Amino acid sequence: MIRVLHVGVGPVGQRLARYAAARKELKIVGAVDPAPDKAGRDLGELCGLGRLGVPIHPDVASAQRAHRAHVALLTTVSSLERIRHQVEELAAAGLDIVSTCEELVYPWKTRPALARAIDAACARHGATCLSTGVNPGFLMDFLPLVLSGVCQSVEKIRVQRVQDASVRRIPFQQKIGAGLTPAEFRRKKAEGTLRHVGLTESMHLIAARLGWKTTRTVETLNPVMASRRITSGYTPIEPGMACGVEQIGRACIGRREVIVLEFRAAVGEPESFDRIEIAGDPPIHSTIAGGVNGDTATCAIVLNSIAAVLASEPGLKTMADLPPPAWMP
Amino acid sequence: MIRVLHVGVGPVGQRLARYAAARKELKIVGAVDPAPDKAGRDLGELCGLGRLGVPIHPDVASAQRAHRAHVALLTTVSSLERIRHQVEELAAAGLDIVSTCEELVYPWKTRPALARAIDAACARHGATCLSTGVNPGFLMDFLPLVLSGVCQSVEKIRVQRVQDASVRRIPFQQKIGAGLTPAEFRRKKAEGTLRHVGLTESMHLIAARLGWKTTRTVETLNPVMASRRITSGYTPIEPGMACGVEQIGRACIGRREVIVLEFRAAVGEPESFDRIEIAGDPPIHSTIAGGVNGDTATCAIVLNSIAAVLASEPGLKTMADLPPPAWMP
Repeated sequence: MIRVLHVGVGPVGQRLARYAAARKELKIVGAVDPAPDKAGRDLGELCGLGRLGVPIHPDVASAQRAHRAHVALLTTVSSLERIRHQVEELAAAGLDIVSTCEELVYPWKTRPALARAIDAACARHGATCLSTGVNPGFLMDFLPLVLSGVCQSVEKIRVQRVQDASVRRIPFQQKIGAGLTPAEFRRKKAEGTLRHVGLTESMHLIAARLGWKTTRTVETLNPVMASRRITSGYTPIEPGMACGVEQIGRACIGRREVIVLEFRAAVGEPESFDRIEIAGDPPIHSTIAGGVNGDTATCAIVLNSIAAVLASEPGLKTMADLPPPAWMP
Repeated sequence: MIRVLHVGVGPVGQRLARYAAARKELKIVGAVDPAPDKAGRDLGELCGLGRLGVPIHPDVASAQRAHRAHVALLTTVSSLERIRHQVEELAAAGLDIVSTCEELVYPWKTRPALARAIDAACARHGATCLSTGVNPGFLMDFLPLVLSGVCQSVEKIRVQRVQDASVRRIPFQQKIGAGLTPAEFRRKKAEGTLRHVGLTESMHLIAARLGWKTTRTVETLNPVMASRRITSGYTPIEPGMACGVEQIGRACIGRREVIVLEFRAAVGEPESFDRIEIAGDPPIHSTIAGGVNGDTATCAIVLNSIAAVLASEPGLKTMADLPPPAWMP
C-alpha cells in the first residue's frame, strides 16, 4: 500500500482525495491545509466522503511526524516562486511529490536557477518531484511528444484544445470571461485572471524533448466574441459580448514557427475536441472527439503518476523523463 | 555520438539504415547479416545510400570486435524462439538492443520462462533490450496505455487499425490476401502467412500494465470479401474474392471482455484510420485520421527509442517500462 498525504485541500485537492479513496493501491493517511476552516477537520467529511479518520494538519511537519507517508499530492498554487519552499519542505520530510503546479511542469527555461534549486533540494533529500495535469502535463505537451515517437522527422507541432463551456461549471464559465463586455474582458485580462497558466511551459517541454532551440515563445490572449445571442451557458450572452477566451502560444526557431498551441474555451462553441497535428514524416492528425474532461483527467493523471515517481531516481522530473502514467486500479 | 550496429539488413533493416543515416546523433559503424548476397558488401551500397564505408559482417563477434558499437538494431525474425540466442549473443558482446521482433514486445505471458531467460541474460551482461515498432509496440498497446493515463477508471479498451491497402506496396497487398479466392485464402491462412504477429502480445502488454488478470485471450482471422469489383489495387478483385484480412484479438476477465483489438487491411477499404476507444471515466475517443504509415513509423520508433534504452537499467524491457520515445533530430 502506498501511503498518501494530500497537501492542499481546495477544490482540486478535495476531488483528488475522493479519487484517491477509490484506488485500491493507495491509502490516504493524512492531509495538510493551514486554512482555519480546514485544519483540524476530518478530510473525508470535508470531501463529502463521510468520516475517514484522516486529520487535516495545519503544517507538513506535524502531518509527516504522525503519518510517515510515501508521497505528497501537492495541489496548492500555480506559481513556481510560491511552490518552491513547499516542495523543499516536503522533500526534506522524506516525501516524493506529485504536484499540479502549472509552472513546475517545465520550469527549466522560464526560471532555470529556481528549477536547479528545486532539483538540487530534491536530489539532496532523495526525493522525486513531478508536476503534471491534463494541461499542462498531458494534452498539449506530453501527448504530442508521444505521437512524435513514430516520426522520422518533425517540422512543426500544432495542438488545439477547443471546449464548449456551456456544459461546464459556472465558475469555469466565469473564469473564461463568458458574458463580459469587451471593456470588462480587457480589465480582467489586465488583472491576469483570465489566463490559463502553463502554455509557455508546454512549449518549453516540447522543445526541450525534441532538441529544438527555440529563439522566441509568445502568448496571446483574446476574447471569443459572440456573433449571435447565446443561451446555452449559465447566463445569456448578447452579440458583441465575450463568450469565452482564446489563448495562443507560438514558439519559433529564428523565423520558423515550430509550435502552435491554441486553447479556446467558449460558451456556445459548436464542438469540443483536442487535436494534435504533426507536420512530419509520417504526418500525424490525431483528434480526441469531445475533448478530455479536464477536472477528472487532472486528478486521474496525478494518481496514475505516483508509481513511476516512487520508482524514479531523485530530482525534479518532467513527464518526458518517466515511464508514462497509466491507469492502475 | 551513438555507435549503431545494424543486425539484419533485410527490407526493414535496410530502410532503418537509411533512416539512421539521416540522424545527426547516430553513427552507423557496422552491420551484420550472414546471407551470402549481403555479407562482405558495403551497407550503404546495399541500401541505395552510396558507399558508406560500413561493412556487413557475417557474424556479431567479428562486427563488434571491429566496431565497438553501443547499440544493436535487431531486425531479423518475428519469433521469440529464434530471437533468443541473437539477443543473448548481442548482450554478451556488450550491446544494448532495440529490436522489431513482434513476439519480443511482450513475451512475459506467452512464454514466461523464455522471457525470464532473456531478461536474466541481459541483466547478467548489463545490457538493456527493448522490442518495439508501430504495431505491436505503439498503436494498439502503448498509445492506448498512454491515453489511459488521464482516466480515473477503465472498463474496456477497443483499438481499430483499419487500412486501405490500395496505396501500399504490392507485397503488402499480397501478404493480406488481396485477390485470393476463398479456398486460396483458407490455404494461406492455414500456412500462417496471412497472420499479423503481435496482437496477442499487445493484449498482454495492455493487461499487464493495467493490472488486469485476463483469463482468456483469443485471436480470429478472416478474409474481408469483396462485395463489388475492386480495381484500386495491384490486381482487379472480383466480387466473392478476398480483398484483405481482418484479424481480431479479444481478452476477457472471466466473462467480461476488456480488450478488443481489430486489425483490418483491405484493398478498397473506404478509409484508413487508427482509433482508440476507452470506456472509462473520462471516456476517450481518439482517432488518427488516415492512420499511421507503418513502414516509416516502425523504423522511426526504433531510432527514437535508442536514447531511453541506453539510459535504462539492464534487462528485458517493454514500452511501458521506459520514458516514451520522442523524435530527436
